[in-house]
Formats: sequence, structure tokens, C-alpha cells
Amino acid sequence: MQKLTVIKVGGKIVEDEATLTRLLQDFAAIDGAKVLIHGGGRSATRIASQLGIESTMIGGRRVTDAQMLQVVTMVYGGLVNKNIVARLQACGINALGLTGADMNAIRSHRRPPKPTTLDDGTTATVDFGFVGDVDEADGQMLANLIKAGITPVMAPLTHDGQGHLLNTNADTIASTTARALAPYFDVTLMYCFEHAGVLRRADDEQSLIPHINAESFRAYTADGTISGGMIPKIENALDAIRAGVKRVVITRADAIDGLRGTVISEK
Amino acid sequence: MQKLTVIKVGGKIVEDEATLTRLLQDFAAIDGAKVLIHGGGRSATRIASQLGIESTMIGGRRVTDAQMLQVVTMVYGGLVNKNIVARLQACGINALGLTGADMNAIRSHRRPPKPTTLDDGTTATVDFGFVGDVDEADGQMLANLIKAGITPVMAPLTHDGQGHLLNTNADTIASTTARALAPYFDVTLMYCFEHAGVLRRADDEQSLIPHINAESFRAYTADGTISGGMIPKIENALDAIRAGVKRVVITRADAIDGLRGTVISEK
Repeated sequence: MQKLTVIKVGGKIVEDEATLTRLLQDFAAIDGAKVLIHGGGRSATRIASQLGIESTMIGGRRVTDAQMLQVVTMVYGGLVNKNIVARLQACGINALGLTGADMNAIRSHRRPPKPTTLDDGTTATVDFGFVGDVDEADGQMLANLIKAGITPVMAPLTHDGQGHLLNTNADTIASTTARALAPYFDVTLMYCFEHAGVLRRADDEQSLIPHINAESFRAYTADGTISGGMIPKIENALDAIRAGVKRVVITRADAIDGLRGTVISEK
Repeated sequence: MQKLTVIKVGGKIVEDEATLTRLLQDFAAIDGAKVLIHGGGRSATRIASQLGIESTMIGGRRVTDAQMLQVVTMVYGGLVNKNIVARLQACGINALGLTGADMNAIRSHRRPPKPTTLDDGTTATVDFGFVGDVDEADGQMLANLIKAGITPVMAPLTHDGQGHLLNTNADTIASTTARALAPYFDVTLMYCFEHAGVLRRADDEQSLIPHINAESFRAYTADGTISGGMIPKIENALDAIRAGVKRVVITRADAIDGLRGTVISEK
């Protein structure tokens, strides 16, 4: 089965010129078929601020009102996505920028207001606005593109099929895409960020946990070793493996040329 | 030969909710294969202004410095393009948003500073900045997409193959695309705007010129009947016909369901 690498990079990487250049060079050098999924939250916050629009984050997730939806559509779908596509073309990669609306790649529905743990630890019902929870990705269509030599570059936007774009978490786009492609490829999903992987102590890059499985994940969350935004990331990873993705790796953006970092598997 | 309709709509149409809705309904209803090319200049000017960036137009063309390139990348490639794609999907059209960078659809080079007629009638050497003059479009690739049932929605951005996006006139994108597709389809190219077609008198919609050919175009420009921004539009149209496009029509955006308006042909 042909190998496919699905790489997700967060906003901090794609918004710094030096780290983006390094990332795109390393990405272009990956052997075989690949997909890039990017964030862009910091740029969205900056552009929104310049437009006089305040960013509201709850539990690390952005509240997306109509104005903020315009900003993320501009920043994720335009500024970040199209610059990456142009730069990959210059590296000889036949990139194609996609949102979930393009060729109906990823369909979602607007998230209903739901009980959410706030930053102060209390719980309240939160309406995140124009935020999409994914229903399905078109793996067959994406596989056809990839087999034709195209490298999809995916922005964290989906659509509801009723004409509305929806802001969607980039980690979720990555796991959804990896799962949808699992029937067609031997898929490695890599989450890239600024740390060496999942750390026991946030300030100690040497405290890397090299391997996590479903059982040790339960133990690490129970004793507080793993907390906050890392929990949904690893939950996503385990879901992806149960859906047929072969390997999930959480690693530094400058380490995508190998399987260094934290490798996540079922057992 | 399979029919293909290439429709170009300007900023004024796509930025007004009512005219955009009507346009997308009419576009979706066109029988057979089609491509939509959009502008977005008014939105770009508005967003730029909100960001404190001044828009400079010379002879009707935008000067695109580094900041303005970011704005048009956001507005054309993101805001306008992705909203149109999502709304066409809701109409049952399998739309795919593209810039020239995506799948290397349209390659260009940065326009060198060149003598330009200014708004006051004098001539000066103008550097338009990050503006692209088109080198070539990949007609084979676009034809393959269209034959697979996909409807390209093209933003007025190209790339230079060196990693840089370039702002490119939407009329030029339209004629380039129509010409590149002429070997594969019986192509009708329609330029849609707010008037009934080419008018003898700008303020009289009844003064439509129903047909223009190369000879009458020379006469109309010589006697001043046709002037200003309409001249390059018709030059583009005649170039397209010489390159194999079957029909070019200049018409109102709400008249794309027929061949009303001004029909342009070689003879």
C-alpha cells in the first residue's frame, strides 16, 4: 500500500518566516504522497485586532461570530493557504489549496451551544458561533487527487452544504483527513508544533514521553501528567488509529523527516 | 465539441448580496460545463482602508505593494473566493476555488515598471508592484478538472513559480482561461458587469452596440465612442477569439442565461 504522510502544523510555525521556510523545505523533501494541514490562529487574531475585532477564546477555542468568520476565511483560506501553495510550487510540489467547501472535501454542521469548561474551571453553556463539527470528508476524491500527483494543502475551514463556511479546528481537519485516506494509503499522521513531543514537564524538552497508548493515556490524564489542550489532541490521535491510520506522531516541526517525538498507538 | 461557458463577474456584482445571489443562481442554472472568474476590488479597497492601508489606482489599475498583496490575497483568494465556492456547493455545483498558484493553473511574471498614461492624461513610468502579467495557463489540467465534473472558481491571483503570488487583472484571467480551454471545448466567454453591454452613451442603457468586430472596434475607438477601461476589455476579447474562443459576450450580470448584450467576433 502506498505510503502517505499527513502533516499538521500550527499557527506558530506557519506565521514565522524562518520556521515556515524550514517546514516547507522539509515537507517538500518527504518521500512520496503527502498532505499539509495548517492553522493560522495567531494571524487571525492579529488581523482581527487591526480591524478592531476582538478575539474571544474559551478553553483554547475561538468564538467565531460573523465578523470573525470573515477574518478566518480571509486569513486561513487566503493569506496563509495561498502563500503556502505558491511557496510549495516553487519547491516543485504541485500543491492545491483546499477548504472543506472546495470539491465538498469536508462537510460539517454548526456546533450547537453546549456545556463547556471555562478557563476559570466553571462550566457554562457556550455558543461558539460559526464553528463546524465535522460530519465527513471525501476520502475517495482526496485519494484521486493525491494519486494524480497533487499535494492538498488544507485550511481549517469546512462548510455545511447550505452555503455557509464554518471555522474548524485544524487538529480535527488533520485527523479527519488522515482517517478518510486510511482506506487508500498507509497513513502516518504527524502533529507538528514547537515542542519535541508530549512532555512530562512543559518546560523540559528532555522529558519527552516517546510512546503513548490508550492505556497509558488514561493513566497520564488521571495523574495530571497530560492536561489541557494536549488531551483532545491525543484523543484525536487515538480515534485516528482506531479508524485505520497506521501511526500518529506528535513532534517538533523541524523533526518531520523521521519518527522522532511521541508516537501514539492503540497498544 | 462539448460546450463550456466562462463567466467573469466584477467586484460590484460579487460584493452586493442581492446581485451575488442572483448571479450564483443563474450561473448554477447554465447548462453544461462552466468556469467562474471573479473580481473583488471594492472589498479589497474597503478591507485595506479598515487596516489603514491606502489604495492607489493608476489608469484604473491597482498599485500592489507588499501590504496590498496581503490584502488582495486575503480578499480575493479567501473571502470572496471561498464564499462563492460554499454557496455554489449549496446550489449543487461541485465548485473548486483556484488561484493561479493552485496546481500551477496560471503562471505569470512581475510586471516591470513601464510607461503608463496617468489619470490626468500625462505619461509616466509606473511600478505597479506585485502585479502579474500572465505567461501561460494549464488548459489541459483545467480541462481534466472540468471533464471530471468540477467547476473552477478562479480568483484574480497568479504566481511566478518562485514562491510569489501576484495580483492579476480578472479580465485577463478570464480571457487567459478561455483561450487555454479553447482546444478542449466550444468556449463562450462572458464578461458580466452592471450595464447591458458596450454602450454608445454611458448613461443610456438603450444605446447598446449589439455587435463589434475588429474593424468596427477600430472605428469606435477612433471616433471616441469606445474609450477608457472598455478598450482593454475588448482587446482582450478579440485576442481570445483569435486564439480559438468561439464567442465573447459583454453583458449585464443578470443576463447570462442568453446571448444578449454585445457580441464580439473577428468579422
